[in-house]
Amino acid sequence: MNAVKAKPKKTPAKTPGHFAQFSKAEFEERIERARRLMTRKKIDGLLVSSEVHLEYLSGFRTVFSWNSPSRPWYFFLPRVGEAVGVIPEFGATGWRKSSWCKTLATWPSPRPEDEGVTLLTDLVKGMKRRYGRFGVELGPESRIGMPVGDLLCLRDAIRPVEMVDCVGVMRELRLVKSPAEVSRIRFVCRAACDAFEVLPGKIGAGDTERDAMRAFQFEAMARGIDKAPFIMPRSGKDGVDALVAGPVPNKRLRAGEVLYMDQGCKHEGYFCDFNRNFTVGRATDRAKRAFALLYDSTTAGIAAARPGATAEDLFHAQAKVLTDAGIVLGDIGRFGHGLGKNLTEPPSNMPGDKTKLVPGMVMTIEPSLMMGGDRILVREENLVITEDGHRMLTRREPREVAELAA
Amino acid sequence: MNAVKAKPKKTPAKTPGHFAQFSKAEFEERIERARRLMTRKKIDGLLVSSEVHLEYLSGFRTVFSWNSPSRPWYFFLPRVGEAVGVIPEFGATGWRKSSWCKTLATWPSPRPEDEGVTLLTDLVKGMKRRYGRFGVELGPESRIGMPVGDLLCLRDAIRPVEMVDCVGVMRELRLVKSPAEVSRIRFVCRAACDAFEVLPGKIGAGDTERDAMRAFQFEAMARGIDKAPFIMPRSGKDGVDALVAGPVPNKRLRAGEVLYMDQGCKHEGYFCDFNRNFTVGRATDRAKRAFALLYDSTTAGIAAARPGATAEDLFHAQAKVLTDAGIVLGDIGRFGHGLGKNLTEPPSNMPGDKTKLVPGMVMTIEPSLMMGGDRILVREENLVITEDGHRMLTRREPREVAELAA
Repeated sequence: MNAVKAKPKKTPAKTPGHFAQFSKAEFEERIERARRLMTRKKIDGLLVSSEVHLEYLSGFRTVFSWNSPSRPWYFFLPRVGEAVGVIPEFGATGWRKSSWCKTLATWPSPRPEDEGVTLLTDLVKGMKRRYGRFGVELGPESRIGMPVGDLLCLRDAIRPVEMVDCVGVMRELRLVKSPAEVSRIRFVCRAACDAFEVLPGKIGAGDTERDAMRAFQFEAMARGIDKAPFIMPRSGKDGVDALVAGPVPNKRLRAGEVLYMDQGCKHEGYFCDFNRNFTVGRATDRAKRAFALLYDSTTAGIAAARPGATAEDLFHAQAKVLTDAGIVLGDIGRFGHGLGKNLTEPPSNMPGDKTKLVPGMVMTIEPSLMMGGDRILVREENLVITEDGHRMLTRREPREVAELAA
Repeated sequence: MNAVKAKPKKTPAKTPGHFAQFSKAEFEERIERARRLMTRKKIDGLLVSSEVHLEYLSGFRTVFSWNSPSRPWYFFLPRVGEAVGVIPEFGATGWRKSSWCKTLATWPSPRPEDEGVTLLTDLVKGMKRRYGRFGVELGPESRIGMPVGDLLCLRDAIRPVEMVDCVGVMRELRLVKSPAEVSRIRFVCRAACDAFEVLPGKIGAGDTERDAMRAFQFEAMARGIDKAPFIMPRSGKDGVDALVAGPVPNKRLRAGEVLYMDQGCKHEGYFCDFNRNFTVGRATDRAKRAFALLYDSTTAGIAAARPGATAEDLFHAQAKVLTDAGIVLGDIGRFGHGLGKNLTEPPSNMPGDKTKLVPGMVMTIEPSLMMGGDRILVREENLVITEDGHRMLTRREPREVAELAA
């Protein structure tokens, strides 16, 4: 396969997509809030090793560390006293260039017999104790960036200090996004919207789903995003297989079909998450009606997005439009979720999730409609809750979805 | 910023970069080997949740699941009896399209109070027991794809069955790559080599390090790879800051400098990992000498790569060329490592790692030279061990590195 002929546009030193690091004040506020939550949850200190939490608290930026599991990277935050980056020695220069935290404990890694565990033990033993409890990432939706075996060693080594969960602290911290965080999500939302908008000029009947995926990926990256870790194209008549989690397919697009493209582009540590739909040539009446209904459902979900409403309110607002039209929902799952440093974050727009929306929360609105068999249609938009309601982060998909050349 | 003008080349249904799924026979062999190792290590069953291990054993392919931590995905393999995919219900279609394993246990996720733990408990309790030991990912260089809290719940629920490490089994399984695995690594190595080769026509003095990164990324993706998760450009006079793990910099390239670009491109679940170097205009004599020395060191490392040699032999072969030239190595770390589904895998080419090389192991050869202060120069190549020595997977970087326009 030959190279694409065009030379990528030169990136000026400061492109629209290149944000300055978060300010020192922003990190100070994160740390102060973390410490207030630690006091409330009776935790003397916490340790994070996952990409999102380490980045969120320390500001350390790396593409290497999360692709190479040979070495773990840690950030230690006591409730009282100095925060410490506990990292492989060779990462010290990179850490100092990106993190506000200049205190480091390092070891020469790889060192299979002790990848930082002794350093961590000493820090926990030396921290000011009030509650005798030390927080690590144990709870729902968390992923640690270290071997479990090392975590269990640490737990034994720090006794009588008790190892407890700190994911509750991190969840509460991350739930509300700062204006600087929202600006990054808005940037990546717009880049993806722009990329979707030019797709009808790039693909059409006869092209494959992978062509569509790749065209979107190129267009999004040309607009300055870091990467497109998640793209899922699916095509079919009046709906697509429910294949969000599955292999990227490669069927050819045929006239009269629907092309569904879900995606999560990422930029400087923040995701967007929304899909767009296309019809190959003219839509069938059935698809048209479904898209119109989903549009109205999305409208209702967006209208319900304001401070004081709950995540389940967002579900019910979207669901009501569908059930009013005679749809039986069945076991439909959720109609959207939180969004930020992860593609999917708490809360879930589903019955039972009573998380109260507050300004700064970024949410997806995502109704879906079963079209018979395993087939489904979906629309998704992203917004941020504001003092007086919400602000859209995506440009809404039009009621009649875009046409590709048949 | 405007879109790149060119339309990406259309991907035919079967591009050179699109491999068929691994054969059923390949998975049967992996499972059979896994079971033999389980018997040897006295494990009645094992559970994997990490991307690499789940993909390796089950064949399940997804880009969604590893970007969305809301839901875990599990593969359960008993030593005797039927393997089971334990996954969120909505993923069943995608699983069946990609995995050889058609037996599923599913739950409607998200379900925060029980994300699959009860299903897993029942499977472990129902498995045929001989040793009373159940393996999960605990050991060195592992990362689980589930919350630690859930793993601890499972450990308590399956008593008296003991929870033990299965990373030793997985490490031994993955150490030797099959011809089908090697073909994927060779593909991604070649795509990255080709992308590097055209860079001198695309960037030069005055461009930034990010321009170089982005140009490489575009060129590699245009050659059919899935993604370029790790790219690290660094430039400087006679060496670059040791910044592999750190923020992507954005300095402008100046005449007389060296541009170092490390990268790990990924395709269908397999990485390459090698860097290339460029000089902006003519190299200084000092850089020329250093590159020549590193070339000879790489040559020695490559020559030592054959069955029967150890990982530390690869280190010593590379190191000898440097020390013979009067270099004091100091605390240099390792000179390469294993490569495959992770960017870095065991073993490490460093003193003390006595892992024996056998045909099918894929290794990096990676000598480095400190150039004063924090500055460093590196060369890296990838190869596979064969019956009679090795075969290169990268096209070697020439002794005199390529020039960019000054």
